[in-house]
Amino acid sequence: MNPPSSLQELIDSLRCLPGVGPKSAQRMAFHVLQRDRPGAAQLARALSDALAVVRHCERCNTFTEEQVCELCSSPRRDNALLCVVETPADLLMMEQAQCYRGQYFVLMGRLSPLDGIGPREIHLDRLMRRASDGLVKEVILATNFTVEGEATAHYIGDVLRAKDIRVSRIARGLPVGGELEHVDSGTLAQAVIERREV
Amino acid sequence: MNPPSSLQELIDSLRCLPGVGPKSAQRMAFHVLQRDRPGAAQLARALSDALAVVRHCERCNTFTEEQVCELCSSPRRDNALLCVVETPADLLMMEQAQCYRGQYFVLMGRLSPLDGIGPREIHLDRLMRRASDGLVKEVILATNFTVEGEATAHYIGDVLRAKDIRVSRIARGLPVGGELEHVDSGTLAQAVIERREV
Repeated sequence: MNPPSSLQELIDSLRCLPGVGPKSAQRMAFHVLQRDRPGAAQLARALSDALAVVRHCERCNTFTEEQVCELCSSPRRDNALLCVVETPADLLMMEQAQCYRGQYFVLMGRLSPLDGIGPREIHLDRLMRRASDGLVKEVILATNFTVEGEATAHYIGDVLRAKDIRVSRIARGLPVGGELEHVDSGTLAQAVIERREV
Repeated sequence: MNPPSSLQELIDSLRCLPGVGPKSAQRMAFHVLQRDRPGAAQLARALSDALAVVRHCERCNTFTEEQVCELCSSPRRDNALLCVVETPADLLMMEQAQCYRGQYFVLMGRLSPLDGIGPREIHLDRLMRRASDGLVKEVILATNFTVEGEATAHYIGDVLRAKDIRVSRIARGLPVGGELEHVDSGTLAQAVIERREV
């Protein structure tokens, strides 16, 4: 006794979504068929639409429907600053923090040799061309503070410095509102090492 | 700065899936657009196909592509036994346990007055007609041992007994391989109360 083939097909297809295993795929399929058929129809349409029109910005590499994204073509952004992030989600977080008015470059990943993700896969050549456009004065590395994010920042930093481009890294330290008692010791040690004169 | 509209639409649409909040919807959308466009196209197709052909079996109410499902139309099943389960997933679990050769009725839910799910929503009238077909000798209630599942079993049991239909409930107790030391006390208490002579 198996589910009908179209239902089994739907369960299998849902597994393309990250974090969805066989059990949740089955639960999702049963849920939409039983309780939210309009939602499922809408999802099918949204997937097809997005696949048809979403592509990468030619300048910053983020997702866009245009050749060059809204942010890259905005006259209000500072072209002297270029911030390098791992993903479009990170770009959105930066924008939500409202602390930055420069341009971006989205790697769409991080260096991870074991997963076959090298300099080519994070579009390093395009980043180099972008950073050498004559307008960029400083590249801010805002990759994650994970092992892979740190390795990526080091690698890109080395390559950019070799071309005499000024490079900076966003700060590590205690979070705003953070208490020494509750922070992990690695973060605290880094906050001491990277202390600033006041 | 928002994601392009087709991407935002996709993120919003993914929230129709159970257990998917705004953050995971965004992660899913970015993932499929960046890393698995063929998977996303396949998912769109599978959703449309399933919506077009999947419906409820006229006899047991489970998902099927036919008027009457494979299991209900099988000549090898015992028509004297009718097992009531909450969902098609539960039906599949019963079949995997290979302990039962009778027929099923799938409630597609459980009684939950607070959520507006009453006897009508779990198709009690159809279950009554199904159980009164003259062939069914015993109805086995296999709803979950949750508060709502238990309430559902009690309610259905009362209604069926009032029509002189024999009703049973699957057993509670320690799991196979279970150790007294590691079982919760509620289960242990039930296992003592529902002890069987040997």
